[in-house]
Amino acid sequence: MDITEQFGKKVRHLRKLKNLSQDELAELCELHRTYIGSVERGERNITLINANKIANALSVSLAELVTE
Amino acid sequence: MDITEQFGKKVRHLRKLKNLSQDELAELCELHRTYIGSVERGERNITLINANKIANALSVSLAELVTE
Repeated sequence: MDITEQFGKKVRHLRKLKNLSQDELAELCELHRTYIGSVERGERNITLINANKIANALSVSLAELVTE
Repeated sequence: MDITEQFGKKVRHLRKLKNLSQDELAELCELHRTYIGSVERGERNITLINANKIANALSVSLAELVTE
């Protein structure tokens, strides 16, 4: 599994754990819902700034988000 | 300090700890030396894939690299 897939799976896992829809997470991050979907599928080589926005929205550290 | 600056400082710190020049780190990552320089100065909104290459080259986890 490559790093983008691993990251996407972790985002999806934590989003569901917090009972957030993709729409809700997208709004919290100020990113688009379809973008969140593609991140979760590992299709995006996301940047550090957007990865950090998602971490903040999920109330976790960026380190936690990039840990398998 | 924003996330790109924090990341850059951590890369520089760990690179020096391992007695690597920017050239040597760049070669290990298969990235360009000037790119490594701009990452260390926090000027790059680096992607997950390149951040992971740098982590591998420094023999640390990506999580360690994004921890202050």
